[in-house]
Order: sequence, then C-alpha cells, then structure tokens
Amino acid sequence: MNKLTHATAAQVRAACRSGVLTGPTPGLAAGFVQANLVMLPRDWAFDFLLFCQRNPQPCPLLDVTEPGDPEPTSTAPGADLRIDLPAYRVWKDGERIAEPTDVTTHWRDDLVSFLIGCSFTFEAALLRAGIPVRHIEEQRNVPMFRTNRECRPAGRFHGPLVVSMRPLTPEHAIQASRICDRYPLAHGAPIHFGDPASLGIADISKPDYGDAVSIHPGEVPVFWACGVTPQAALAVARPPFAITHKPGHMFLTNLTDQDLDGSVG
Amino acid sequence: MNKLTHATAAQVRAACRSGVLTGPTPGLAAGFVQANLVMLPRDWAFDFLLFCQRNPQPCPLLDVTEPGDPEPTSTAPGADLRIDLPAYRVWKDGERIAEPTDVTTHWRDDLVSFLIGCSFTFEAALLRAGIPVRHIEEQRNVPMFRTNRECRPAGRFHGPLVVSMRPLTPEHAIQASRICDRYPLAHGAPIHFGDPASLGIADISKPDYGDAVSIHPGEVPVFWACGVTPQAALAVARPPFAITHKPGHMFLTNLTDQDLDGSVG
Repeated sequence: MNKLTHATAAQVRAACRSGVLTGPTPGLAAGFVQANLVMLPRDWAFDFLLFCQRNPQPCPLLDVTEPGDPEPTSTAPGADLRIDLPAYRVWKDGERIAEPTDVTTHWRDDLVSFLIGCSFTFEAALLRAGIPVRHIEEQRNVPMFRTNRECRPAGRFHGPLVVSMRPLTPEHAIQASRICDRYPLAHGAPIHFGDPASLGIADISKPDYGDAVSIHPGEVPVFWACGVTPQAALAVARPPFAITHKPGHMFLTNLTDQDLDGSVG
Repeated sequence: MNKLTHATAAQVRAACRSGVLTGPTPGLAAGFVQANLVMLPRDWAFDFLLFCQRNPQPCPLLDVTEPGDPEPTSTAPGADLRIDLPAYRVWKDGERIAEPTDVTTHWRDDLVSFLIGCSFTFEAALLRAGIPVRHIEEQRNVPMFRTNRECRPAGRFHGPLVVSMRPLTPEHAIQASRICDRYPLAHGAPIHFGDPASLGIADISKPDYGDAVSIHPGEVPVFWACGVTPQAALAVARPPFAITHKPGHMFLTNLTDQDLDGSVG
C-alpha cells in the first residue's frame, strides 16, 4: 500500500471502491484531509448536527450530506460514502452488528452523513515544523482519554469530552499551540497541558482508547479535543441505526491541509 | 432610551420583557453582542441548521435551542426568547401575519430558535479603530444588496448571498479586512470591494434593503456577507410557520464583543 502514500485522495477512494484497499489510512495521500464518518437516520440527524455545532472543537464539521444522498458534494464531489472508505462499522441500538468494507446493503434512504475533521491534519503540520509526534515515532495508536469535562448536550446526545495526548517539551508545546490554532477544523489548539488529574485522568499510562506512549524527561503531556468524542456520545445515545468508519479507516476528502489552514482562509 | 446605551444586555432584555422597550436596538448595551432571531418548527430546523452550517459567513450561529425551549442556555441563560426582544415578525406560509412585541401567544412546543451573529459587532470594532462607518455617520440603515452568488443550498433552503456595503478608502478597507477577520461569528472579513457589477449589483445607489449612503471621492464600496441572507432563504422556502425579529430589533446576548474576537478565542 506504500504506493498510496503519494496518491491523490481520489486514487485512495478508487482503491477502496475496487476493494484493493481495506486497511487503515494514516499516511496515505499525504497532504489531503482525512475525515471521520458518522451516518445517522434523518430523525436523529438534527440532534447530532446540533451536538457538533455546540461542540466544534471535538466535532469540527467538514461536510454534511442531504438525507439519502451518499455524495459529499462540498468536500469530494462524485465520491460515494457507501463504498469509498476501506472499512465501516454498522450499529443497531448501540451494538456493533457488522464490520463490512462497503455499506451498500446497509444503506437507507433517510441516512445523513457527517464528515468530521481529524488530528492527522495538525500532526502533519507539527511534523513539517520539526515537532516530534511520539505515537508516530513509536508506531502506535495515539493515546486517548475520557475526561471529567462534559460536552454541551444536544437532544439525545451527551457525554464526556475525549482527548488525545502527545508528550512535548514546553517549547514544543507553545509552538504546537500556535500551529494547531490555525486548524480549527482539525480540533484547533490544545485544551490543556501538564496535569492529567485536572481533566479527571487517573493514570496517564492507561489510556481509555489507543496505546500508551513514552513521556521523556522534560516533557509534559499535551491534550487535544479528540474525534472519538462523537463516538462516545453515540455510545450513550444508542440510536436505532448508525454507520461509522472503522477506527483508523478514514474517508479521504479532496481538501488539502492548506485548505484547512484558518490563517489563510 | 438613551439610558440603555450603557445598560447591560440583561437590562435591555428586562426592558423588552416589561414592555418599556419596543424600538430598535442599535447602540444599546454597548459592547454586548446583538443577534438575529429565527424560530422554526423542528421539522424544518434540520434543513435550516444545515443551511447555516454550509453558509457560515452570512449565517454565523451563536446559539441554537432545543425544540420547545425558549431559553438560549449558551448565550443568555435565564432569558426567554418569546418576550425578551423589542419586536417580532410572525410568518405563515411565507406571509407576514403579525408584528407583535412578544410571541407567547404564537409559541409552539416544536419551535427551535436560532441566534445568528450580526454586523453591529464588527462595526463597533471598526469605530474603535477610527474607521468611519458611513450609514452610522448619516444616521441611515446600512445598504444591502442581493448578489449573483448563490448560497450553498440545504434541503428546502436556497437563495442568493445578500451583502451589506460600507464605503472606505483603500487604506481603511485593508485595515477593516484585518479587523473583521477576527470576528468570524460576525460575518468575518469582507467578501469583495470595488466592483459592484462583479457581484451582479446593477446600481450601487439603489440597495435592495436599507438605505443608500454617500460614497466619497477616493472611496471604494466594500461588501460583507449579511445576516439578511437567511431571511432571503426563508422567503424562498416559505415554511408553514416561522418567527423572526423585526429588522433592527435584535436580541441582546450576554456575549461581549471581546468574546467574539476569534484571535483571542
């Protein structure tokens, strides 16, 4: 799959559509923006749209489709969200019932699709600036934690803010704050650094999702709002039907990292 | 009403609630953010929320309520949107049927209220920077124009981008661009300057809404996305029922201009 590193977003989507690509997408189509996917029936879509509107840092909306239309016309015209991701999860009453590589047989005419920004965008910007990203160095998943901060609820959706953590020196943390602030559609600046307990995190070596990473002497843990937050809210709300991407198996949009740089927007 | 210039937002809302204030709000509670109001039945609220999400420059959302709840919990906890504005318009099938000073008798348990940012916020910032705002100097309404640019449609909502116009010298236009860019929730930076025809505006002296203002030698017309845009979309969609503020008779939030300054966000 390494040849997809320098592919375009459209080429990665085509590889998903043809069944060639069924694995995770980190590092693919470098420079193109990857997105989390949530599909919900129209009856639940208003509450979820409102949840995202009220919690833009963990849930930055890149695109929302019309009910029944699988084409994200703003971020990838011509794409089909039912077949253009490598793998999906299908949920019924909050329980996972399937993990297919396309969802054409699960499709319903009332589904609204939400594409939500993800951290890959700002991690690429950090790496370009020479700031180390530990879980990439250690080839692990980013460590993620449920916090004691509640999201603003919306209708049937509520739940804790979930954060991702990257250890940095104070100098790098300051530089990272300035860089990430330019990407409000990719979670923006960090929300905290230094004290896990103030976020209700009991043990920084035991993440709730993903893998633990090394924290070197002189480094502090830096915390960002995380795209797993809407999944935690879905787990609480237990809608009768939902489709999401399989973790790490994201949708490739036509947007570039540059498009998401709010400082030039 | 001049004593309300230095009032708090809560004092202005109380004056509306008691019936003391039924007139326009520009200049009242200086430093507090004023908002456009749109109330729609829940069945129409998803389309409208999506319209705002897709067109954030003309329709920047400050707050959206739960269906049936008249309290904007994020921007003015304790306020009641049915009685805390000076005057309203009530719409049935796209026709105006009433212009009351409270809407308790028109209230429905399925109404969702949208509070949308307005230009007063950035005009105050321009004035603080010594940039003249012509329609304020000339004590008129800001001139507004329908353009040839279509908003991104959403469900049953579509229509042209409406812009407001303020004449400025090129130097002031540049300074205004930098200042307004800091207020994305108050329409942000201008979208054009110089050539009305490129926006499909045939005669700059004949605005579609508001009043014409003088353009001095050496000044260019500068155009901003305008909060009348969602009203134009409502006029096209003709929902069976809607309530809006009466133009110029806005809702006073507890937010301050400083809160909306994205550069310190």
